[in-house]
Amino acid sequence: MKDEKEISPSVISRLPRYYRFLCELHKQNAERVSSARLSEMMGLTASQIRQDFNCFGGFGQQGYGYNVEQLKNELAAILGLTELKSAVLLGAGNLGMAIAGKMDFEAVGFRLDAVFDCADGLIGRRAGLHTVSDVKTLPAYCAAQKPDMAILCIPGEAAPEAVDTLIGCGVSSFWNFSHYDIRRRYPAATVENVHLSDSLMTLSYIINHRKAT
Amino acid sequence: MKDEKEISPSVISRLPRYYRFLCELHKQNAERVSSARLSEMMGLTASQIRQDFNCFGGFGQQGYGYNVEQLKNELAAILGLTELKSAVLLGAGNLGMAIAGKMDFEAVGFRLDAVFDCADGLIGRRAGLHTVSDVKTLPAYCAAQKPDMAILCIPGEAAPEAVDTLIGCGVSSFWNFSHYDIRRRYPAATVENVHLSDSLMTLSYIINHRKAT
Repeated sequence: MKDEKEISPSVISRLPRYYRFLCELHKQNAERVSSARLSEMMGLTASQIRQDFNCFGGFGQQGYGYNVEQLKNELAAILGLTELKSAVLLGAGNLGMAIAGKMDFEAVGFRLDAVFDCADGLIGRRAGLHTVSDVKTLPAYCAAQKPDMAILCIPGEAAPEAVDTLIGCGVSSFWNFSHYDIRRRYPAATVENVHLSDSLMTLSYIINHRKAT
Repeated sequence: MKDEKEISPSVISRLPRYYRFLCELHKQNAERVSSARLSEMMGLTASQIRQDFNCFGGFGQQGYGYNVEQLKNELAAILGLTELKSAVLLGAGNLGMAIAGKMDFEAVGFRLDAVFDCADGLIGRRAGLHTVSDVKTLPAYCAAQKPDMAILCIPGEAAPEAVDTLIGCGVSSFWNFSHYDIRRRYPAATVENVHLSDSLMTLSYIINHRKAT
């Protein structure tokens, strides 16, 4: 395997898709998959796929395709899915409830351990398998449990204070649905931003362009 | 402006981020922004930014930076945000409720016009400004209103039938939260997939890699 530091963000961003397609093939009891079939599923050239896999030492035998289960397991290990990281979720509105109730965290490398909110009307309610806790208890929780990651389903206005608190408690990785730019204030933080509006604007561009032609 | 067909998907995918940063600068009453400042905000080189903008004829004057309001407005026009497209939302669970209630659709080129579900317990409830309608009325609604786009907040199992219905009603653009691969069945459809689990797996990779170093 190459030194992982050399692996480009674009290769990393494709790994979850490879893994997703392999899980699907595995569910369909496929034993092997050709690079041609994989390239059709991924919408990439076979050569691009070989290049991506070569970053991790390559997984295939020439002319024989890939063993589905083995490749799936190797990708899971590379993605760190086999070692569950603990997560807390802040914000138990509709979005937080959807995330807490619907996401299969364990399938993607995490374990959701607690849900927090500041609203009296939400504290004590069920959120997936959890009971919503008062955000005032977050520092004590973090000191005791040392979660690996925080999910921010809170409004942008509430985010700066929440992030200050979490960073102060030693949490430096975020799955961020708020529009707060965490890395501008904390450049060393690990952040995956989910910008739903960017995705809608991209769709707007494509629809308008299609209409115009 | 170049023929838009030549503009690469990676440039298109950066446009919403440029637009977002310019909206922020505009809110802060900034009149002009240098390409150096813009490149710092975007995490791109100034030359990359110039190349991106050149796809649309370029917007700046050498050594004088960009006029924030003008650039914001030009990007809005390119993204089609000034011409609202009508959308329907399918699935009024927590995720659908969060999307219907929280997204500022008009800021990103859309107008949410109706929300549908199949569950008796949800039909008739409020979802943002809308009342959830019975999905049985969707074909009649589409025939009368001809929506431009459908948002799928339904489970993957329910998606194939819903997409067949929508395509049959003339809706061919989708903002897709289900895990159903619409384009495998309808290659001509316009689809923005939101794969929240891919984003979590990427975060898993980065956290694991950081731990290892």
